[in-house]
Amino acid sequence: MKKLINDPKNVVSESVQGFGLAHPDLVSIHPDPLFISRKQTKSNKVGLVSGGGSGHEPLHAGYVGFGMLDAAVPGAVFTSPTPDAIIPATLAADSGAGVLQIVKNYTGDVLNFEMAAEMATAEGVQVSTVLVNDDVAVEDSLYTAGRRGVGGTVLVEKIAGAAAERGDDLEQVTAIAQRVNDNVRTMGVALSACTVPHAGVPSFELADDEIEIGIGIHGEPGRHRIPMEAADGIADRLLEPVLTDLNLSAGESVLLFVNGMGGTPLSELYIVYRRASQLLAERGFTIERSLVGNYITALEMQGCSISVLRLDQELTELWDAPVHTAALRWGV
Amino acid sequence: MKKLINDPKNVVSESVQGFGLAHPDLVSIHPDPLFISRKQTKSNKVGLVSGGGSGHEPLHAGYVGFGMLDAAVPGAVFTSPTPDAIIPATLAADSGAGVLQIVKNYTGDVLNFEMAAEMATAEGVQVSTVLVNDDVAVEDSLYTAGRRGVGGTVLVEKIAGAAAERGDDLEQVTAIAQRVNDNVRTMGVALSACTVPHAGVPSFELADDEIEIGIGIHGEPGRHRIPMEAADGIADRLLEPVLTDLNLSAGESVLLFVNGMGGTPLSELYIVYRRASQLLAERGFTIERSLVGNYITALEMQGCSISVLRLDQELTELWDAPVHTAALRWGV
Repeated sequence: MKKLINDPKNVVSESVQGFGLAHPDLVSIHPDPLFISRKQTKSNKVGLVSGGGSGHEPLHAGYVGFGMLDAAVPGAVFTSPTPDAIIPATLAADSGAGVLQIVKNYTGDVLNFEMAAEMATAEGVQVSTVLVNDDVAVEDSLYTAGRRGVGGTVLVEKIAGAAAERGDDLEQVTAIAQRVNDNVRTMGVALSACTVPHAGVPSFELADDEIEIGIGIHGEPGRHRIPMEAADGIADRLLEPVLTDLNLSAGESVLLFVNGMGGTPLSELYIVYRRASQLLAERGFTIERSLVGNYITALEMQGCSISVLRLDQELTELWDAPVHTAALRWGV
Repeated sequence: MKKLINDPKNVVSESVQGFGLAHPDLVSIHPDPLFISRKQTKSNKVGLVSGGGSGHEPLHAGYVGFGMLDAAVPGAVFTSPTPDAIIPATLAADSGAGVLQIVKNYTGDVLNFEMAAEMATAEGVQVSTVLVNDDVAVEDSLYTAGRRGVGGTVLVEKIAGAAAERGDDLEQVTAIAQRVNDNVRTMGVALSACTVPHAGVPSFELADDEIEIGIGIHGEPGRHRIPMEAADGIADRLLEPVLTDLNLSAGESVLLFVNGMGGTPLSELYIVYRRASQLLAERGFTIERSLVGNYITALEMQGCSISVLRLDQELTELWDAPVHTAALRWGV
């Protein structure tokens, strides 16, 4: 596996340095302990902090900026960041109105953010936490008790960020983030494995004619392996459990999010979107908003995930609200 | 090679259908002959048309919309579209002020757009053409006489699109597009090959420890193959010929564009950006603007390209002007 890297042990720090050099108007880089903070801040706005293992870019640093996150904490590749980095990020995100931690439900992340929340609280910062657990594929997994946090995380960060930007207080922003999480479901597929730089070998093996349905974003196992099949069939396999679990009623409006795992061409994501969109229409659901692209990845893994978010008028307005980050931008 | 597709012969049409379903506010899809047109048009604006083989997404359909293209014509994968599709696209793009064709310099594209321009002219549309040929890697190549059009195409489309949107006439928009092309240079690298869906086998072979410097966006040969090396060295190998050819003077301002070929994680593109940014600073150039991501790709190829555009005040203002397309959006 060839990678555009220098020393494997500097992958995260050099990538974050490059990110800071490319987006000096948006972010400040704090090298040790490593976190990214938003440059343009305002006082008395609820701060949003997220983080987790690296390798899922643009998540989370790519979502730091106006209308989304105030700080992001990247761990080593596929490894939770530690409290010594989460604490200063949380303090940096606080402008007097408290901080919401958005945490993907992985055991390491949950423990480390919890510890950091306690320490930040001890320093006088009000902290609340929302765990994202939108993955319908598996109930418990290699790295989690309960469901994993995957594609829905991007939607939680965007919509909660908009709530904070309009002036909601910590309780309100937390409730909005929780409402997004409660109304989004996701399932993914891997066509190929990915290789963690310092490991140097693929995280798992998939035969040439095999795919893994229900994969996580770290290459951890999903529901089952099946022979390779056509995109439409794969889209159905991902979307059905999502819809069943979300328990949508005909006539409801949704946001449809087809996410690339990093190594799949955009053209293929649109082929998946096409089928998912047809299936939603057949069931009588209205796609009010869409998102298609590589927004939460697993290094160079080939594959995708499909997320469906049940929309109401307020969530739609918050989704539409202006955002200016490296990876998601509109209205400004 | 596993792909998220159905029948290989429907890859382009299904992907474009999905694109239309995902972005109904931005584009209309014309299925036969296949082209994409902008939904919100205004009269007496110079129209911009581009197109070329598919497989480079989001180019070109992803750039149809406010402040950029009025129509895009996708050919089969890595195959020029034919005049029967380029002609109606050109007519659709005309709102009374003429049409600029932005054509990447590949023999098939040049011939087919030329023929379409003649036919559209015969129908009373004023047509001008700018050939993009920013690739410094090779002088002639498998598919070209002269240099190939690669990453610079995105910058030409954005900046010329802004000129058209502000009300420049056809001569002025053409001159702006030509100025961007004259001031941008690009070079790319491949770490892996890509597989055209209907071919089913990789376009070329690269050994596990080998990379191709100066690769085109169709997997056509570049300058030379070398053993795999660190990202910083690769960045230097790409950037040096770009800077030499561009003949920048210290103190000049540039836009630095690190583009992914489709299969390389964003985190690695930022590692390349980091080194390129350092090298530009060492030489006394100012990076005024940046772009990092998968904007002109070669299916799932792993690798990247580096483009440098010499900026002046007008080009910077046009770059900053609002744009609303599926793949590039700001200010609106």
